[in-house]
Amino acid sequence: MSERSLVLFELAGADQSVRFSPHCWKTRMALAHKGLTAQGVPWRFTDKAEIAFSEQTCVPVLVDDGITVSDSWRIAHYLETHFPQAPSLAGDNSGLAACAFANHWADATLLPALARVLIPDVFHVLHPKDRQYFRASREARLGMTIEQLPTYRQDYLTELKRVLTPLRGTLKRQLFLAGHAPSYADYCVFGMFMWSRCVSDIAIVEPDDPIHAWRERLLDLFDGLARKAPVHHLTTGDL
Amino acid sequence: MSERSLVLFELAGADQSVRFSPHCWKTRMALAHKGLTAQGVPWRFTDKAEIAFSEQTCVPVLVDDGITVSDSWRIAHYLETHFPQAPSLAGDNSGLAACAFANHWADATLLPALARVLIPDVFHVLHPKDRQYFRASREARLGMTIEQLPTYRQDYLTELKRVLTPLRGTLKRQLFLAGHAPSYADYCVFGMFMWSRCVSDIAIVEPDDPIHAWRERLLDLFDGLARKAPVHHLTTGDL
Repeated sequence: MSERSLVLFELAGADQSVRFSPHCWKTRMALAHKGLTAQGVPWRFTDKAEIAFSEQTCVPVLVDDGITVSDSWRIAHYLETHFPQAPSLAGDNSGLAACAFANHWADATLLPALARVLIPDVFHVLHPKDRQYFRASREARLGMTIEQLPTYRQDYLTELKRVLTPLRGTLKRQLFLAGHAPSYADYCVFGMFMWSRCVSDIAIVEPDDPIHAWRERLLDLFDGLARKAPVHHLTTGDL
Repeated sequence: MSERSLVLFELAGADQSVRFSPHCWKTRMALAHKGLTAQGVPWRFTDKAEIAFSEQTCVPVLVDDGITVSDSWRIAHYLETHFPQAPSLAGDNSGLAACAFANHWADATLLPALARVLIPDVFHVLHPKDRQYFRASREARLGMTIEQLPTYRQDYLTELKRVLTPLRGTLKRQLFLAGHAPSYADYCVFGMFMWSRCVSDIAIVEPDDPIHAWRERLLDLFDGLARKAPVHHLTTGDL
């Protein structure tokens, strides 16, 4: 464990123990992989002033003994560079660059497909002060109201299953994205599944899907770090 | 160069010098990466009997001194295992497993998006004896006739551009999919671009797209192997 003072600003729900951001999960898993512990600071979408020092408007933001690093990809590079004795985030790969494609795929292809399924649940998990901001920004992006999304949920789940095809194909023949050991590539994709787990009860993969077994392996890593993370409660949505 | 007798059965068009299969291109680039030369044997979709010895109905099929290997992914593993002194196909990665996700993405996500754009051109490049087979199988898969596809081409190109987002994002910041050096991951994706180059004049990426510069780098590899490969001629379609 680190003796340095690491602080991580993380997106939180109305229940501040529920930390559901997929990008923050990438960083949490990366810290754990490095054997580092950070003090997690709950942050909400509308708390822009609280991270103004980072010159960013969104999280994760990591502060390491006064040094501020934002953007999950830059944080991963920072951790690789500044904690070289700790296990490499590249896992079986020789460098973090080999994880870039999985990260971009998670952000550009998987996240939008999952968002259409999850956004109604995310909305209910949010702190009331975040809801107006979230509704306005997401409805503009989606071209429909949050309340209209569930009507198409079955179609969205079918499309999500299609989007997941390359992940499924890969995990049919190997344990992790880079081979025998987990790497930051796995955490980038797994972050999306933690987003789902933290806010929703929807089953996004079937039990016989190789992705399901891979997710179980990720949930077990680091003494069950992700499995033990607090998730939404059914009553939270009505706070 | 190899002293072994390597033979590669490759999909060919009416003009037998035009070898346009994306999966065969994966193998051609892999052989070149290993410094190996194979004798390419032109094969058409309907020549099932000619590769019956391999117990496969499609190519690539590699024959190495009497040993038959089929399926481009298995061929890549075979080359890694049997030519260990030659440069590794894993490039900057430690193993071929790290290339699996890019390969599955190319096959399951990129190929179908590109197929809807290219199939009318593929059809014209085919040997006349293959056309009935190709029409029946592709029209069943697409749910429309080959002649209907161009009507939607602009929409398909827009969708293709969206599908390419993770590749574009990755190549904005690094030279190859695994980092500084090309690996089999690059060849898997590049195979799709060679499919396009061999059969069509359609510009599928803009000159200012980072994917364009990456494709140029791949075309230059191995003394311009891919750049020099014969492509369709406008008159071929009317054979």
